[in-house]
Amino acid sequence: MVIGSVIGSIWATRKEEGLTGLKLLKVQIDVPEEPSILVAVDRIGAGVGDKVIVTRGTPASSFLDTPVPIDALIIGIIDPEDQKG
Amino acid sequence: MVIGSVIGSIWATRKEEGLTGLKLLKVQIDVPEEPSILVAVDRIGAGVGDKVIVTRGTPASSFLDTPVPIDALIIGIIDPEDQKG
Amino acid sequence: MVIGSVIGSIWATRKEEGLTGLKLLKVQIDVPEEPSILVAVDRIGAGVGDKVIVTRGTPASSFLDTPVPIDALIIGIIDPEDQKG
Amino acid sequence: MVIGSVIGSIWATRKEEGLTGLKLLKVQIDVPEEPSILVAVDRIGAGVGDKVIVTRGTPASSFLDTPVPIDALIIGIIDPEDQKG
Amino acid sequence: MVIGSVIGSIWATRKEEGLTGLKLLKVQIDVPEEPSILVAVDRIGAGVGDKVIVTRGTPASSFLDTPVPIDALIIGIIDPEDQKG
Repeated sequence: MVIGSVIGSIWATRKEEGLTGLKLLKVQIDVPEEPSILVAVDRIGAGVGDKVIVTRGTPASSFLDTPVPIDALIIGIIDPEDQKG
Repeated sequence: MVIGSVIGSIWATRKEEGLTGLKLLKVQIDVPEEPSILVAVDRIGAGVGDKVIVTRGTPASSFLDTPVPIDALIIGIIDPEDQKG
Repeated sequence: MVIGSVIGSIWATRKEEGLTGLKLLKVQIDVPEEPSILVAVDRIGAGVGDKVIVTRGTPASSFLDTPVPIDALIIGIIDPEDQKG
Repeated sequence: MVIGSVIGSIWATRKEEGLTGLKLLKVQIDVPEEPSILVAVDRIGAGVGDKVIVTRGTPASSFLDTPVPIDALIIGIIDPEDQKG
Repeated sequence: MVIGSVIGSIWATRKEEGLTGLKLLKVQIDVPEEPSILVAVDRIGAGVGDKVIVTRGTPASSFLDTPVPIDALIIGIIDPEDQKG
């Protein structure tokens, strides 16, 4: 998994059917050379400024009963005292 | 998922059978250090200039009943006011 | 998927059983910062100099009935007039 | 798989259900150009300072009976005399 | 798949159960900007100095009947005259 910071929401009215109702957040991944931005699904209430753990690839959609084309899921909000580490 | 801009279509008359009828678009991924170009399947009507969300890997082909060798799918067209963010 | 140019064949007499009979080509991927070389299976007759579309990861082996350890497949030969784009 | 060094634990009280009870460690991956930090599940007792082997992607969650959204697992602690190599 | 050179073995006495009996080799991947080292399973007798083809991700573990957490497999030893190419 990778660590990143939530920097905002993202909205796409025109989208693949399976995505209706899924909350999409923009996450800045903490990789110095490659400060890339991922879009990840969030189901645990993460918000802007939270440090989060993101799972990528097929495992990210494993929580869904029917296959939905997503490849990144926020799986944890890092506890505050841990964020300084 | 990653964010990118649609920069054109791409045509391949000689291709794997399963791809017949699938629309392929060239997408420039917004990663500063690594402005790479992906080819993604589009089913929601994206066009040149649209900012889109792209899913990669196995989940990208999950909408297909029979397995087809694709690894990138445009899953959303980002709403205009969101594109400035 | 990614775009690349076929630059040659590659032969491995000593190999995993499932690979017997599969044609392996070396493909130079068009990512400016990272001109990396992939080895991909070809089933549609690509040759040196052809611009091709390559699928990577698990979907690349989806055409096989029994699982074979490959992770890159040439899925299309880009039409000539499209190659200038 | 990749090689890395365990640099600490990471705690996330608010997390996806399936993750309860899984131990998460921060691992610095030994890739010179890209010293990136992964979060990996550990089940074999790795600790800070250990050199470890990490599997990524779907195979990382293969040990679980029910699908859980993780994509990195520590699969081995490299033997001390091997760590100099 | 990627091309690399075998640079040594790696031993991990403490490891995930499924890995017992699997031979692990260190492979230097031929990507100029990113000379990264992978750990791959070998079943075809590769040795130090051999140029090899490596499959990564889920397909790498497809040869196993029961799921084992590995994500890289040496699938071919490149024939000597081909190694100059």
